[in-house]
Amino acid sequence: MENIKRKATRQIRLGKVLIGGGAPVSIQSMLSVPTRAVDAALAQIGALERSGCQIIRFAVTGEEDIRAIKSLKKGAAVPLIADIHFDHKLALQALEAGIDGLRINPGNIGSRAKVEAVVKAASESGVPIRIGVNSGSLPKELVATHSVSAQAMLEAALQHVRILEDLNFDAIKISVKASHLPLMLASYRALSDAVDYPLHLGITESGTLLAGSIKSAMALGILLSEGIGDTLRVSLTADPVQEVLVAKQILRNLELRKGLNIISCPTCGRTRVDLFSLATEVENALQDYSDLPLTVAVMGCAVNGPGEAREADFGIAGGDGEGLIFARGEIVKKVPEKQLVAELLRLIKERIPGG
Amino acid sequence: MENIKRKATRQIRLGKVLIGGGAPVSIQSMLSVPTRAVDAALAQIGALERSGCQIIRFAVTGEEDIRAIKSLKKGAAVPLIADIHFDHKLALQALEAGIDGLRINPGNIGSRAKVEAVVKAASESGVPIRIGVNSGSLPKELVATHSVSAQAMLEAALQHVRILEDLNFDAIKISVKASHLPLMLASYRALSDAVDYPLHLGITESGTLLAGSIKSAMALGILLSEGIGDTLRVSLTADPVQEVLVAKQILRNLELRKGLNIISCPTCGRTRVDLFSLATEVENALQDYSDLPLTVAVMGCAVNGPGEAREADFGIAGGDGEGLIFARGEIVKKVPEKQLVAELLRLIKERIPGG
Repeated sequence: MENIKRKATRQIRLGKVLIGGGAPVSIQSMLSVPTRAVDAALAQIGALERSGCQIIRFAVTGEEDIRAIKSLKKGAAVPLIADIHFDHKLALQALEAGIDGLRINPGNIGSRAKVEAVVKAASESGVPIRIGVNSGSLPKELVATHSVSAQAMLEAALQHVRILEDLNFDAIKISVKASHLPLMLASYRALSDAVDYPLHLGITESGTLLAGSIKSAMALGILLSEGIGDTLRVSLTADPVQEVLVAKQILRNLELRKGLNIISCPTCGRTRVDLFSLATEVENALQDYSDLPLTVAVMGCAVNGPGEAREADFGIAGGDGEGLIFARGEIVKKVPEKQLVAELLRLIKERIPGG
Repeated sequence: MENIKRKATRQIRLGKVLIGGGAPVSIQSMLSVPTRAVDAALAQIGALERSGCQIIRFAVTGEEDIRAIKSLKKGAAVPLIADIHFDHKLALQALEAGIDGLRINPGNIGSRAKVEAVVKAASESGVPIRIGVNSGSLPKELVATHSVSAQAMLEAALQHVRILEDLNFDAIKISVKASHLPLMLASYRALSDAVDYPLHLGITESGTLLAGSIKSAMALGILLSEGIGDTLRVSLTADPVQEVLVAKQILRNLELRKGLNIISCPTCGRTRVDLFSLATEVENALQDYSDLPLTVAVMGCAVNGPGEAREADFGIAGGDGEGLIFARGEIVKKVPEKQLVAELLRLIKERIPGG
């Protein structure tokens, strides 16, 4: 089996998280509650951390958000990034307040003096900057020359990069997000060819939970399979915790991260159990085990099930009111259908240390 | 923007559907009700056809299923495939009953005489055969030599291919499905390098609706982006209609098929409307327009929304109780938030002939 050959990128440090240079692909999300609503923001940070989120970003649009940063830093275990548009004072204040990362486009900050002030402060604090180019807000002159294209996206990113490089600042990561999948793919490929800074992957306006997950899975899956991408956010019009759960599945499917993998067979004319609800029941029952590197199979057919799922660590297969519990293709016991999930859980707890 | 360069494959005909040789990637699904339950099967065939399914497969495990085929053929507008394991008599009977395609592995049929009988009958009926290799049921001797690997999958497929080629039968398509994503990718890549028969893509035991859609979107997305794949099935532990809807989204995201594309921005601290429910409401309201090649944006922010979604044909952006309707970045009107979706629908109907 070929493994993914990840593109060599420089490494930066965002708080305690390493990005690029062979570090594991890290998962980010963004607060959907207002940053200034400190209690709600802390609650969401906690929920995101418990779901496995490694980096959390929030919008900083005014003094009230700045005042919130210190409390959020105290309550957060993961590094925090301030997302700032244009305003260099907010960037300086966020750095003073102890933020771990900035997302700000240096080309949009304004005068040279303002850019220099932000970059100097970030450099002194050891804080990296993400350049975030978005197809929806490309500079007019680039759109005039190149239309909305990968070339325009790349050029927009490089303009910001050159500003930072001129100031000898290299703790850079870059994103070139779009909502149009082919444009997003072409932009990241061009960027990956042009620079060796670590790349932050994402697709914008991806849609509701299911549609957005499909689009993100394709976008991120395709680029990651080409070795492109050092950190990522799955953007969904949904609870940000869902973004993290989807991101974890994407990384696990490509074996870029270990964890629980539940497989279940599609229903066919041979199925004799209610496989939909059985699979969902197993998924729910095993939620606390999501970081264990196990494959668990939920099969509809007692005849072929254990054999077809012989690569699974554990599994169940339904029959006519009865079911089988199996492990690595070997049948462990036969139980009434209603006890299948409970018996599966019992077996996993028995065999997995700490499970 | 680079387009996907699809790999050149031979073309076969399955009923009225062309597969391979530059034909559009077609969408398949499989009945989850028993084939012999004719009324239920016809109802599901109808639902699948309405959802956009182009080819429907069902298990044929005995005489009762054979007897159902004639009724199903009468009621179906799309080509039908009989999925048969081992039994050459069932294959011959399915052909007699007018089936459009067979999924049967010639190496598993038995004696040379039986294989020849099936291949001769398929050839005379102009019916193609899909060779379907599955990582869960690889021949023991191949697993002994190659373990469960892409090499074993490829060799298993080629053994079946050689049998058909020996009999001068070339109306072949091939699948090499696995539930393990890296194995599935490596197997299809090896197969695509080795043969120019059209390939049927799929990942097995992919999981529940969301998890399975993510895995299928990655598997199919990655291969399609490499130009591999001529027809596909998204296998889900869910209603087969969902398989078709997910497959359509995968093809649309890569622009391998036209249709409605709803984009919505992730929520951030700037959002002032309930974007989750708004996006879902739009998705539901536009269900009847799913084949129109339109992009519709649902944005949370009235300030940036129309600009960020200027590539969308139509869009809405929320504000404080008020919202904007826009088209190609131009604001069409401002309306109370509660009327946003109704006004959007009205605008689309007004501007789209037949919409």
